[in-house]
Amino acid sequence: MGALALTMGEPSGIGGEIAVGAWRALQAEGGPAFALLDDAGRLSGLGAPLRRIEAPEEAPAVFRDALPVLHRPLPRPALPGCPDTANAPAVIASIAEAVALARAGRVDGVVTNPIQKSALTAAGFPHPGHTEFLAELAGTGVPPVMMLACPGLRVVPVTVHEPLRRAIARLTSAMIVQAARTTHAALARDFGLAAPRLAVAGLNPHAGEDGTLGTEDRDVVAPAVAALRAEGIAARGPLPPDTLFTARARPGYDAAICLYHDQALIPIKTLDMDGGVNVTLGLSVVRTSPDHGTALDIAGTGRADPSSLVAALRLAAEIAAHRRKAAAA
Amino acid sequence: MGALALTMGEPSGIGGEIAVGAWRALQAEGGPAFALLDDAGRLSGLGAPLRRIEAPEEAPAVFRDALPVLHRPLPRPALPGCPDTANAPAVIASIAEAVALARAGRVDGVVTNPIQKSALTAAGFPHPGHTEFLAELAGTGVPPVMMLACPGLRVVPVTVHEPLRRAIARLTSAMIVQAARTTHAALARDFGLAAPRLAVAGLNPHAGEDGTLGTEDRDVVAPAVAALRAEGIAARGPLPPDTLFTARARPGYDAAICLYHDQALIPIKTLDMDGGVNVTLGLSVVRTSPDHGTALDIAGTGRADPSSLVAALRLAAEIAAHRRKAAAA
Repeated sequence: MGALALTMGEPSGIGGEIAVGAWRALQAEGGPAFALLDDAGRLSGLGAPLRRIEAPEEAPAVFRDALPVLHRPLPRPALPGCPDTANAPAVIASIAEAVALARAGRVDGVVTNPIQKSALTAAGFPHPGHTEFLAELAGTGVPPVMMLACPGLRVVPVTVHEPLRRAIARLTSAMIVQAARTTHAALARDFGLAAPRLAVAGLNPHAGEDGTLGTEDRDVVAPAVAALRAEGIAARGPLPPDTLFTARARPGYDAAICLYHDQALIPIKTLDMDGGVNVTLGLSVVRTSPDHGTALDIAGTGRADPSSLVAALRLAAEIAAHRRKAAAA
Repeated sequence: MGALALTMGEPSGIGGEIAVGAWRALQAEGGPAFALLDDAGRLSGLGAPLRRIEAPEEAPAVFRDALPVLHRPLPRPALPGCPDTANAPAVIASIAEAVALARAGRVDGVVTNPIQKSALTAAGFPHPGHTEFLAELAGTGVPPVMMLACPGLRVVPVTVHEPLRRAIARLTSAMIVQAARTTHAALARDFGLAAPRLAVAGLNPHAGEDGTLGTEDRDVVAPAVAALRAEGIAARGPLPPDTLFTARARPGYDAAICLYHDQALIPIKTLDMDGGVNVTLGLSVVRTSPDHGTALDIAGTGRADPSSLVAALRLAAEIAAHRRKAAAA
């Protein structure tokens, strides 16, 4: 087992602090080990022993004693809370290098620290976010799918960052089927589930009550579920959204396919704000990230909580182990 | 302190069973006492001692030893799981009588068992649900507002049982302001809060990110919040919906004003499926109900959980006590 590659993310955000916090939490329990692609100089004030390494393969041996850093210098000092467009190319290069290391088999997977989209966009970054960039670097011919996972619940939003009204208008059965297929394949290969069970949420209150509370459940969601079942995928739905995430309902499925951003994110953040992990399904490489942003408002204060990054590192290692097992079988 | 009036609800559903279960739970702790308006004959097989009373004022004295019943005979036997339209007039009369008792000051409030809308509609009941009927019986000139409450969270959906697409299309600032005003007044009078704090949810992902993810947050929700603040109501918003219900966010407000059914119901049911209570705000009488339906599928099996009804009875008594205190002040 190798190490994971952790990107620097936005250097004026909390990435450095939570990387140190995650190293503290994980080194005590023997890993998973990670190599941080970042400016070693800027990390030196954070109170953890650092070790500059030349190759990610050195990370596992170093990890117990120090945070292994693949030193990638920033052109300008990173001031907490103040993103500097001049540093954007280094932020982007950190992601690209981590993916290249994973594609080459030199690390087990990629864990990304949060980026500040506005700072990257100003520097000419053409992608709306991490996921689209990763699709370009490590796509597999299907659109990547975002999954959020916390203990006891995994959710996949079929539509993500768009106005709710537009998400409803452009939702199709094919979009639901595609996201569900990618999720199903990932649950098998990446999560080691022999027979993954999907719950597909409805769109309207009570999943439309046979068309009296809206027609999309009957006309868009139900045909998607039928198509999935015809492929042999254990999918149920459209299910009433309000009772889909109760303590009683959650053990009945391995992932909930949700139709819009907040239908997926409200329940998972309501349950577990700090330990949530974002996983990108449908890439050639393993990729997870913490389920929060750059937190510019508290960067540099030492108040940032590394829990979600720790969970992201653990989950990336678990997925990598499942992939190895699946590849060996 | 008097008793509460509990309606029979759909007699082929779980109403009778959970009424018995609630009596068991509450008689041991000394109340709150309630009088059940129901057919005493059909309740006799449920294993609790019954006492027919002639007036609700007798209920508190009886409650410790037996479940007090205001006997209202059904024309036809109630078969579990099989609603009979012939019994609908008795179901409706039970609600009307409970409200009349409350309006006359003879009970402290009304708690309603779930009804089966289809059975009542077939009998000519012209209302879409309980709430509209209650508004006719005990309205105060403003539209009644539905609040769902569980320990640590209260939510109010501004739109309720309608297609999501239509709810978005017809949402106005005035609707948000009206629901928030009624909520604010009820938090003061019915919940005893000196300075109620409202959190108003956004509609779009991240509350629209300044219009880049949808315009309703800026054009509809923000003006409503401004109008509420101008009236002296402590309202904040539009707030990103996905982080509004986290453990960290919940203590920051006394009620969340939500824009559509599932935005309100997903978080509260995710947190607490069994102890949720439905409260109708803006009526002249106190009214609560359990946060579930008639459960025809398990009626008669003894598996129904009375927790939500117990919570509804307790909350109705608390609201009545706050109203008495406010009236005496």
